[in-house]
Amino acid sequence: MFYSVITCSAAVAWAPKEPLSLETVEVAPPKAGEVRIKVLATGVCHTDAYTLNGHDPEGLFPCILGHEGGGLVESVGEGVTHLSPGDHVVPLYIPQCYDCKFCKSPKTNLCGRIRSTQGAGVMPDGTSRFTCKGKSVFHFMGCSTFCEYTVVSEFSICKVDPEAPLDKVCLLGCGISTGYGAALNTADVQPGSSVAIWGLGAVGLAVAMGCRERGAARVIGVDINPDKFEAGKPFGITEFVNPKEQERPIQQVLTELTDGGLDYTFECIGNVHTMRAALESCHKGWGVSTILGVAAAGQEISTRPFQLVTGRVWKGCAFGGWKSRDAVPQLVQKYMQKKLMVDEFVTFNFPLDQINEAFKVMHEGKALRSVVNL
Amino acid sequence: MFYSVITCSAAVAWAPKEPLSLETVEVAPPKAGEVRIKVLATGVCHTDAYTLNGHDPEGLFPCILGHEGGGLVESVGEGVTHLSPGDHVVPLYIPQCYDCKFCKSPKTNLCGRIRSTQGAGVMPDGTSRFTCKGKSVFHFMGCSTFCEYTVVSEFSICKVDPEAPLDKVCLLGCGISTGYGAALNTADVQPGSSVAIWGLGAVGLAVAMGCRERGAARVIGVDINPDKFEAGKPFGITEFVNPKEQERPIQQVLTELTDGGLDYTFECIGNVHTMRAALESCHKGWGVSTILGVAAAGQEISTRPFQLVTGRVWKGCAFGGWKSRDAVPQLVQKYMQKKLMVDEFVTFNFPLDQINEAFKVMHEGKALRSVVNL
Repeated sequence: MFYSVITCSAAVAWAPKEPLSLETVEVAPPKAGEVRIKVLATGVCHTDAYTLNGHDPEGLFPCILGHEGGGLVESVGEGVTHLSPGDHVVPLYIPQCYDCKFCKSPKTNLCGRIRSTQGAGVMPDGTSRFTCKGKSVFHFMGCSTFCEYTVVSEFSICKVDPEAPLDKVCLLGCGISTGYGAALNTADVQPGSSVAIWGLGAVGLAVAMGCRERGAARVIGVDINPDKFEAGKPFGITEFVNPKEQERPIQQVLTELTDGGLDYTFECIGNVHTMRAALESCHKGWGVSTILGVAAAGQEISTRPFQLVTGRVWKGCAFGGWKSRDAVPQLVQKYMQKKLMVDEFVTFNFPLDQINEAFKVMHEGKALRSVVNL
Repeated sequence: MFYSVITCSAAVAWAPKEPLSLETVEVAPPKAGEVRIKVLATGVCHTDAYTLNGHDPEGLFPCILGHEGGGLVESVGEGVTHLSPGDHVVPLYIPQCYDCKFCKSPKTNLCGRIRSTQGAGVMPDGTSRFTCKGKSVFHFMGCSTFCEYTVVSEFSICKVDPEAPLDKVCLLGCGISTGYGAALNTADVQPGSSVAIWGLGAVGLAVAMGCRERGAARVIGVDINPDKFEAGKPFGITEFVNPKEQERPIQQVLTELTDGGLDYTFECIGNVHTMRAALESCHKGWGVSTILGVAAAGQEISTRPFQLVTGRVWKGCAFGGWKSRDAVPQLVQKYMQKKLMVDEFVTFNFPLDQINEAFKVMHEGKALRSVVNL
């Protein structure tokens, strides 16, 4: 079968620290093992901003950002058997090939199959499917959902319930799944436990949602924006501490508040100082601290080793530890059964030509998630 | 019942960085909830040297060091029901009261019952049982086994098989149990896995022994003393890497040697740089690094948070995670059934008046463990 190049609109990131630019781009047809998607909706995530702001030393420009999408399969390349045109799909920035040593291990979701080319901003064959003004444009996180059409590896996409609203479940492609999975999979929060969460954005509130589902007794939100307490209550936040209102280090405040420290802490900001605080707020003997935030390049976390020798555990996860193709369709079903909040995370909607607004409200702390409707 | 003061010999640490001094000391009778032990044997451990060398900012002088002991109950204070004079016992620097929140949690062995007084070098009532030349002498780690008689809390002692040679099983009071338990309890090493161990002293080799028992496929010793490879083989070391013979960082060497990194690593030195190397030598997605070594005061461990976000876990333990009074008698039995090596760790024996020799051979790297016979 022969598919033609599609000409459509995209928000192109020409260079770091510049606003995205609405452009007409050409999207080449899928090659063997690839899928072309008509993108209908995409979330805007801090990781997009991280690269756009030039904080990612491996960021490549020009590129098409976006990795929290929902859409329909437009066409499939040779050998792709698990999808057909018209399927409702969510692109996945962590692929699942079912064949590499990571996929075969029950302990991790970090499929390694197309890692090197994904990191290099190209498809597994080493080339890009995007062209703009005669220039090749890089892919981003294997997804590039800030475009009306995108091409992804067959390992980086899953079919979801066609009844599910794509402008909602697109958020299960990153933020919500990341936080929710960190509570369930990585930390494995137990009933009756105490939790503190640094950063009450979408990821942090998804952590809270997972902790509530597990029956945590106390879920303390830690944020410098006082509005976040009310915003967090519907997701499971039961208490709130604003570090700016404290005279003592937050570790000390929380340790006293919880008679020795938290059973579980989560860092959803990406700040190495709050990562340390989160670890050191854990209870001696059993506290587990999970890092979800992405720190600026080159920054390092530190603590005294005594913190670990006395029984605290420091870990982290990407995409909530979910094996992506297995999990996302199930998370969509859980949402359809009203057992998982998703709609509540969507605070703004924008058309593609106002996508820079979505970054603006995110930086202002006004948005949990903006969804861009393409 | 009335017990009198016992006058006997002890190796007293009068001040940091000075050799121990053989002295005549008075050992007061046990108060309520205490036990007086006739010490017959004691190991000499790096933690004793750590305090003696003045590296422990909380070290108190004068004191009687030693925490790897074996002996007989000489007398018991009021209310002590689980021991009687003549019982064969091992003092325990991590107590087990069965009543605090730590003892009630299955997740930790760090009993908190007498932590503050133990740390302050005194018995739970706030006073010392040792006097030398009219001066009160501090206890050490709740044990003080470098003395012919010592007094410990009833929570800090366990009864062991009277058939067990105390000049061997005294080592189950610290080093061997610490390494062996780190492999079994803290890291929970799985069959077929790959392991690297930094520092092939008694603790590191006890880790190897635990890994072998668990069926680890590769147990790589990492040490700058080339003699340690042959020395380590009987304990389960299967390969050896000397960082001094490598031009590249050890992380990189080990990651290549093991196709991506180790399943488990253990740091048994107490050096924050090797702690980092041990973490970063772990396999992405599932590698677990356990810190056993005690770092110098004020030193900190660091790494890029990406190491954790991509699935490595950083943890640590004290006394191998064993709940002390439950575990040590069982470990002694395992030794008596010839299922646990202990004799092989004893490389030197000294009388009490040559205890400084034991420190010397330890610092020279010649000893796995010296046992002092009192």
